[in-house]
Amino acid sequence: MKIAIGQINPTIGDFEGNFDKIHKTIEKAKAAKAELCVFPELVITGYPPRDLLVKESFVKNAEYSNQQIIAHTHDIGVIFGSITRNTHESGRPLCNSAIFCYNGKSQIFNKTLLPFYDVFDEERYFEACDKVSTLTFHNTTFGISICEDLWFQTHLFTKKVYHKNPIDFFKTQKINCLININASPFSTTKFAQRKETVGQTARTLGVPIVYANLIGGNDELIFDGRSCVINPHGDIISLAKTCEEDLLYYDTEKNYVPLAISDNKNELILKALELGLSDYVKKCGFQKVLVGLSGGIDSALTVYLAQKALGANNVIAVMMPSRYSSKGSVTDSQKLARNLGITLKNFSIERLLSGYLDLFTDEFNGLAVDSTEENLQARIRSNILMALSNKYGYLLLSTGNKSELSVGYATLYGDMSGGISVLGDVFKTKVYELAHYINRNEEIIPHEIIEKAPSAELRANQKDIDSLPSYDILDRILKRYIEEGINSDEIIQQEKIDINIVKEIIEKVDRNEYKRRQASLSLRISEKAFGIGRRIPIAYKR
Amino acid sequence: MKIAIGQINPTIGDFEGNFDKIHKTIEKAKAAKAELCVFPELVITGYPPRDLLVKESFVKNAEYSNQQIIAHTHDIGVIFGSITRNTHESGRPLCNSAIFCYNGKSQIFNKTLLPFYDVFDEERYFEACDKVSTLTFHNTTFGISICEDLWFQTHLFTKKVYHKNPIDFFKTQKINCLININASPFSTTKFAQRKETVGQTARTLGVPIVYANLIGGNDELIFDGRSCVINPHGDIISLAKTCEEDLLYYDTEKNYVPLAISDNKNELILKALELGLSDYVKKCGFQKVLVGLSGGIDSALTVYLAQKALGANNVIAVMMPSRYSSKGSVTDSQKLARNLGITLKNFSIERLLSGYLDLFTDEFNGLAVDSTEENLQARIRSNILMALSNKYGYLLLSTGNKSELSVGYATLYGDMSGGISVLGDVFKTKVYELAHYINRNEEIIPHEIIEKAPSAELRANQKDIDSLPSYDILDRILKRYIEEGINSDEIIQQEKIDINIVKEIIEKVDRNEYKRRQASLSLRISEKAFGIGRRIPIAYKR
Repeated sequence: MKIAIGQINPTIGDFEGNFDKIHKTIEKAKAAKAELCVFPELVITGYPPRDLLVKESFVKNAEYSNQQIIAHTHDIGVIFGSITRNTHESGRPLCNSAIFCYNGKSQIFNKTLLPFYDVFDEERYFEACDKVSTLTFHNTTFGISICEDLWFQTHLFTKKVYHKNPIDFFKTQKINCLININASPFSTTKFAQRKETVGQTARTLGVPIVYANLIGGNDELIFDGRSCVINPHGDIISLAKTCEEDLLYYDTEKNYVPLAISDNKNELILKALELGLSDYVKKCGFQKVLVGLSGGIDSALTVYLAQKALGANNVIAVMMPSRYSSKGSVTDSQKLARNLGITLKNFSIERLLSGYLDLFTDEFNGLAVDSTEENLQARIRSNILMALSNKYGYLLLSTGNKSELSVGYATLYGDMSGGISVLGDVFKTKVYELAHYINRNEEIIPHEIIEKAPSAELRANQKDIDSLPSYDILDRILKRYIEEGINSDEIIQQEKIDINIVKEIIEKVDRNEYKRRQASLSLRISEKAFGIGRRIPIAYKR
Repeated sequence: MKIAIGQINPTIGDFEGNFDKIHKTIEKAKAAKAELCVFPELVITGYPPRDLLVKESFVKNAEYSNQQIIAHTHDIGVIFGSITRNTHESGRPLCNSAIFCYNGKSQIFNKTLLPFYDVFDEERYFEACDKVSTLTFHNTTFGISICEDLWFQTHLFTKKVYHKNPIDFFKTQKINCLININASPFSTTKFAQRKETVGQTARTLGVPIVYANLIGGNDELIFDGRSCVINPHGDIISLAKTCEEDLLYYDTEKNYVPLAISDNKNELILKALELGLSDYVKKCGFQKVLVGLSGGIDSALTVYLAQKALGANNVIAVMMPSRYSSKGSVTDSQKLARNLGITLKNFSIERLLSGYLDLFTDEFNGLAVDSTEENLQARIRSNILMALSNKYGYLLLSTGNKSELSVGYATLYGDMSGGISVLGDVFKTKVYELAHYINRNEEIIPHEIIEKAPSAELRANQKDIDSLPSYDILDRILKRYIEEGINSDEIIQQEKIDINIVKEIIEKVDRNEYKRRQASLSLRISEKAFGIGRRIPIAYKR
């Protein structure tokens, strides 16, 4: 049987647009003589629809789309992800379903394992399947599963957090192939985990697995696609594109050789961030973005990614020097803008800064100069950028990285301003790595920007290292604490870092929860990003 | 049997402080010859601990506190809420438990119904009880239940969202009394719902119910206390204080007459907001707060509540007039500050506004003046307030109301700035009602402030009504759409409001999700507030 995998990019709530994409893909697959076309999880609604699922009109629209798809499956079987009503007397109102349809008839398969951790809230909306079943179509018997259904043994918990493994049922059935439809969010380690987990399931069942995944960005989540087919030995034998729509075919009658897949992590992160940024901008209805260029590496990488994602014509950079800006900051920004072919505007904040300082002359008389005066500069810059954003309808990008956001080395309503933070889940050391990677063939990001000592340039001769340990040490602590959930004692022991440094950094992370609560979305590339997947109170005893 | 209810205010994560409060309460109850002392849900950890529950050190601290309490129960039985480990082979790592202890021995009762909607995420952490049981102590048999366990028939869903009702088990047992420990967040309608639901359960079981609730504010949630005892007819026969710590006694051998309880809704909202504000400020480690006074009613009510919650010495008001400020705005603010006995600072934004306009003279040459210039004023004010906040360590309060926040009639990084929004869940019409109530005996909020036509004063002769329908109409639409989840067609039909107005307002609500994502916390007083209980994507097709 020839099976097609429709790896498409739906927009949440765009029922007409999503139907259109699905319909066109079905027609293509049919033209290519596919007998079955498989689409990802919740492809009708987009993922994650979150509390839109509580709206009756949203559910009705999805049901209408389901019927539309079912009505359009002549001479080709289709499996697609959508929501359906829970028809049992009790339980959550909806199910997360895989719908099989053929010649106007349909059969529903519901998700058994509903993820509840990190960014997932599926038990908020969905009732779990209580009876797993198989599908027989054209003399082939399929197991039908949805994403988490293969992740009974999740590495995230020491305990078995689910009570039953739907794969156990398939072991007892004579299935020829397992279908797994997904909305599996990208992280730098996710593909390796998928290969491991899906491969293990294929070996356990002794059948090939057809793995269909979404692509696209939805708020902070990025879906990287890479739908694939895995043979019964657990090898990937067919692989769809990364971060692009694709239509992949697999013929159960043909022989395939295992693919040698070598990931370039930096390439992958850049692709994912470009997709996440581009989709956020477009799905929010913007065309152009605005980036404040400080002369530092974070804003340089942000503007590079914006240019790649949206094109040079759609990126406007703004430099806003002050008395503390080094000469290099201006010339480096100009060089960067030239290299990228983007517009660069220039507004000095000097007079405004003087204006604020004058206003406070009496009020702050006799008080020491402190972070107040530094924050003022960042906030003046935010005002300038937001004025341009308001006047022209450009989306402002926030340029902070994960290291800064972790320890609160950023100004709320200042450099934290913006609709989306491109690097908010990228540690500073990784920012450098990506910049070097980008420059591997030619200098795109001026080497002066990469080589200068990191500085906020908010007071004379300021360096990040005055307030923070070196980024190498800082990021090791942060990765352990935030991403791996390891406590200070273990970090001190494992990383051999001075106890006072570790304690001080952790104290900063905990104290700055309030800033992150008002931060823009950060595109998620790690297993633990700030945002919807990390829910910490603000008012609590540390 | 004499039963005590310890209605206390724990701080999340303050294991020592919470233990201390519990221990002192037990000693008091023992001195009053109580045989059993009942504490609210999760009183050891504070509620809601959210993802702190994922930290092993947090869980270990809670376990240590549990043991401490158990060790301190000599000659008095104690029931308290805490977390325990799920000892079954599979399932979520923790349970939400009621622990009974007496003379160093203990028994654990786990929560059966785990709320998953609105602000609740209990299935993210807790395994549900799979076997309900009773407690026999001093010849009395108790049913033990935790909060949601009584809410099997929740009015929020048309469907039965839970599969089994733990109360059904108690029907089959000969219990003498039902204990229900709670962390039940305040809303204006919650007490009536509780009376109804708990009363119904008492009638069903034919036994009295001892209902113990938390008090205190934790981030956006407010717990109003009002622990009570309900007789088998469903009447409240004993009631603890509102929004204050209390120790309530109930003697099962004595006769009680039903209490006539008449709630004053305005009084109740003011008390709840004061508690929520005071606890947020103190639990975050602040003493003083800062409020920008515009001369309008929202900032007036905010500063009034701050003065009530924290005392006049801890509130600093700031007025920041511009060319568009009416003369009244200044004199009314002065009168208000005098009435409240608070410090009022004054900074004109005129020169700074001119500075920004000068900066953009060339850039915006030939372009129409629009909301850009209005937002600039709001953002200059935010900068001034944040500079004072940074310099003095005062917490800035945000003054916007729910009507504004709903339709985005507020400036991001401008008047939306602040650590917490006191009125972010209070519609404008309710703001007026509260102001009138506050002035019922004497003029505290100057009548000029209440009577003037609402205006942002960001351009000449601006009135809110230029951009919005009257607040009476606006709030009717918003209440239906946001709090009741009703769609535009039904609103038009039910409220008899012009279709274009309804559509325009709903479009504004949906479009402004991005502003609310970066808004400060809003104290929650309704059944559907912005914040953790309402999770809407930003990038989606409306």
